[in-house]
Amino acid sequence: MPIATTPKPPYIAVIFTSQRAGEDNEYAATARRMEELAREQPGYLGIESARGADGFGITVSYWTTMEAVKNWKAVAEHMVAQRRGRDEWYRSYRTRVCTVEREYGFES
Amino acid sequence: MPIATTPKPPYIAVIFTSQRAGEDNEYAATARRMEELAREQPGYLGIESARGADGFGITVSYWTTMEAVKNWKAVAEHMVAQRRGRDEWYRSYRTRVCTVEREYGFES
Repeated sequence: MPIATTPKPPYIAVIFTSQRAGEDNEYAATARRMEELAREQPGYLGIESARGADGFGITVSYWTTMEAVKNWKAVAEHMVAQRRGRDEWYRSYRTRVCTVEREYGFES
Repeated sequence: MPIATTPKPPYIAVIFTSQRAGEDNEYAATARRMEELAREQPGYLGIESARGADGFGITVSYWTTMEAVKNWKAVAEHMVAQRRGRDEWYRSYRTRVCTVEREYGFES
């Protein structure tokens, strides 16, 4: 997973923090499929994701506008996955929708 | 690591995405110390962190205001750690400073 290459701010970040429940039930395959599907959406800029051995994970997706975020949330296949997330895959999660105001970085 | 309990938006999120370099060199101890030190700063709201086995990690810290973020960045002990981060611990990183506009979640 590389660090996402994003444009000059402002743009939108969706921070999805989650604690996985026990069993897989196609979770890994669905997570991969949702990443693919996100990439095809208008306004998609990039995605970053990390999950530790304790099942605690953070995924950040980047979007051009709030409208693009809203449209992605409403994509039918994504809605089915969101429902399964609540029912099967996550003990808890939190989604925070943000405007990125500035960024800086380092590359060795 | 629990999901951070944050107030009603708006507030600030600092998304720190990083790829670790090979050796530890007190990285784990410094990371814990920086979390402790952050908790003591004015305007601190919470922190969430995940790193996978591939060394790719995301840490999000939450703050009341941009001023609080700026002050935390300038804390002397934190500046030393930032310098060691560039010199020793990270292959690359990116910091994005954001205003959280809305949030929603789920708790089973």
